[in-house]
This record gives sequence, C-alpha cells and structure tokens, in this order.
Amino acid sequence: MKSFRKELWIEIPSRVGFLNITEQIVQCVDESQIKEGFVLVNAKHITASVFINGDERGLLQDFALWLERLAPHEPITQYRHNETGGTNGDAHLKRQVMGREVMVAITNGILDLGPYEQIFYGEFDGLREKRVLVKIIGE
Amino acid sequence: MKSFRKELWIEIPSRVGFLNITEQIVQCVDESQIKEGFVLVNAKHITASVFINGDERGLLQDFALWLERLAPHEPITQYRHNETGGTNGDAHLKRQVMGREVMVAITNGILDLGPYEQIFYGEFDGLREKRVLVKIIGE
Amino acid sequence: MKSFRKELWIEIPSRVGFLNITEQIVQCVDESQIKEGFVLVNAKHITASVFINGDERGLLQDFALWLERLAPHEPITQYRHNETGGTNGDAHLKRQVMGREVMVAITNGILDLGPYEQIFYGEFDGLREKRVLVKIIGE
Repeated sequence: MKSFRKELWIEIPSRVGFLNITEQIVQCVDESQIKEGFVLVNAKHITASVFINGDERGLLQDFALWLERLAPHEPITQYRHNETGGTNGDAHLKRQVMGREVMVAITNGILDLGPYEQIFYGEFDGLREKRVLVKIIGE
Repeated sequence: MKSFRKELWIEIPSRVGFLNITEQIVQCVDESQIKEGFVLVNAKHITASVFINGDERGLLQDFALWLERLAPHEPITQYRHNETGGTNGDAHLKRQVMGREVMVAITNGILDLGPYEQIFYGEFDGLREKRVLVKIIGE
Repeated sequence: MKSFRKELWIEIPSRVGFLNITEQIVQCVDESQIKEGFVLVNAKHITASVFINGDERGLLQDFALWLERLAPHEPITQYRHNETGGTNGDAHLKRQVMGREVMVAITNGILDLGPYEQIFYGEFDGLREKRVLVKIIGE
C-alpha cells in the first residue's frame, strides 16, 4: 500500500468564488504513482467546500445566487455565530450545502471521472489564503 | 490490496426519479471477493446523485417535492446556465443537496449498512442512460 | 493492509441536537495503530448525520434554526412519509443537507484535520440510542 499527501494553497479574491482544481488533482495522482486507489480532496477550512460539478457557462454564477438565497449573508445579525463579532455565519451553512470533500476513484493511474465531472474549490469567506488537502491511498 | 470496478447503466423514465440500487452494490461486493475495505458509489453525471436514505413509504415523493421547492425547475429563465439553450439548471443544484457519492464500509465481506440504510440513485435530468461508478479497494 | 471497526452509541436528549465526537474518533485512530489511511465515520441511521464544521459559539444553534427553515418539522401533515403515522419526515430531509458521512485522512498516525475542523454527530429525530460506524483502512 502506498500513500501520498499534498496541501494546495488557494486564495479567492472575493468573499464568494469558485476555482476549478481538477488539473492540480490530476498532477497529484501522477506524482503519487498510485494506479488503483482512492483520492480524498477536502477543504481544511470550515467556510469552504470541495465539490464536483460541471465547468459550464452560467453554472458557477447560479450556485452563488442560489446559495445566497438558501443562506443569505445579510443581515449579518440573523446569525448567532456573528454575535462574536464575525460576519461569516452564512459561510458555515453554504459550505454544508456544497460539501466538504470528494472521493474519486483512481483506475489505471487515471482519475476515474465522468466526461463532465470537474473538481471545484468553493469559497464562502474569501480574501485570505486557505488550504485543500489531497490524500491518496492505493497501490 | 485488491481493487474492483464496475459501471452500472441506469435510465430513469422521467425527469426526476429515484432507484434503489442496494442489491446491485451487494452483488459488486460479492464479485470483488474483498472482505475488508471501502466501496465508493458515485454518479458519473453532474445532474444525478448517489445517496443513502430509507426505502420507506412517502419518502422519495417527499424528496422530490422538497427539492422542487429548494431549486425549482421553472421558470427555466431563472438560471443563467439555461441561457445556453438547456433546461437543466435546477438539476445541477438539486444534485448538490443530495450529494454525488457515498462511501460504505465492507466488513467480513458484507456491506456494512445500518438496518434501514438503502443506497439510491437520484435523477434530476432523466429520460436518458447514465452511469454510476462502483469502485472497491481493500483486501 | 489493516482494518479497524467500532460502533459508537449516542443518545441525544432532544429531537434535534449536535454532539462533538472528534475525541472519540481520535481514540479509534490510536487504537487502530494505522499510520496512513482513511477513516470513514457515518451515521447508521437515516435521520442523523455525521459532518465536519466548527465548534464555535452560536454555530450549532444557527444550524438548527436554518435546517428548521429549509425543512420545517411542522405541520407534520406536509410530508407524505408522516402519513404512515410517524412524525420524522423532516428529519430525513435535514440529514441530506448535513450529510451522512465524512472521510478523514490519517497521516503519521494522526487525524489529518484542519485547525478548526471538528467532527459532529447531528441528530434530527432523537430521544433514543443510535449508532455511528467508524471504519479505518490503511497501514
């Protein structure tokens, strides 16, 4: 059994935003030299997500607008968590809808994704550097 | 370490629908001859889900109605993604609520599920064949 | 390859509630003596969740209020599932938002969590004992 670990550093230049990180995960799988296994990709921060969806026109904007409707940023006084002086109460909720992590199979040394599946980092409290963990176990 | 991979082909005869695929995953675990490990079951399409809940009366209907309330199909013009000519903007959002994948433990060669846990395929843009990936790693 | 399995028994003394189970998962990783691998932590019941977020002031209360808005408990007649005589139709939906399971990497024998990541059990139909499965695979 082999294992591989890497942290990616990501800074989104806005409060909410998305970044396609598929190519970085492909590189991790290549570096790991693991042919059969699983790769776990997870946000190490609790106001960010890693998720799989499509890199298609309009979609990321739809996610942002929809999440804003499900868990609005304002008024910030609606969240108890913000009573501590912060303003990211909504970000903790948005991250639950989109998820913390994805697991992807590795088959014949290749990330075993469907034709339109792309791996995204989702940020809900940005403007600072955050980390994504990539951990691979296999053979 | 052993690995096993299979694709299931599923066609739901309506736009939104659910299918209990537990028995097919049990068969994969049997075929794999893996006694201790993890099985990953994920939709390979970005408008479908794999999730675990119960096969109990009324429940799947409640999911469909609730998801329609959280991310309505109509009016289709509410989604930027539909400006490309498609109509499945809502399906990409519904799939995020229900999730892309499940991981289930395998213990003594058996799918290690709770008494009411059943594995479902959830479709939000149906009427065509789609694929589910089953990948098992273990020993 | 090594494997480890344990069930945690949890009883939340209210219909909805949250419990930080991080320390119990740390103990499982210690007991397993696995240095590199993955730990799966999942609810074995379909009206409960295991998820990762922060143990910060106000946050768990925000989750409870927000989930009540997304999938209200009352009126109980709004759910078809409750026509069977039960009252937990909402709990099956709330659990989908928060998720069934988390996967966490193990690196150098330590749970590979970010600085604020804590593992929670989320209950949406409590007042009785339920089980959480902890399964570890690695070396």
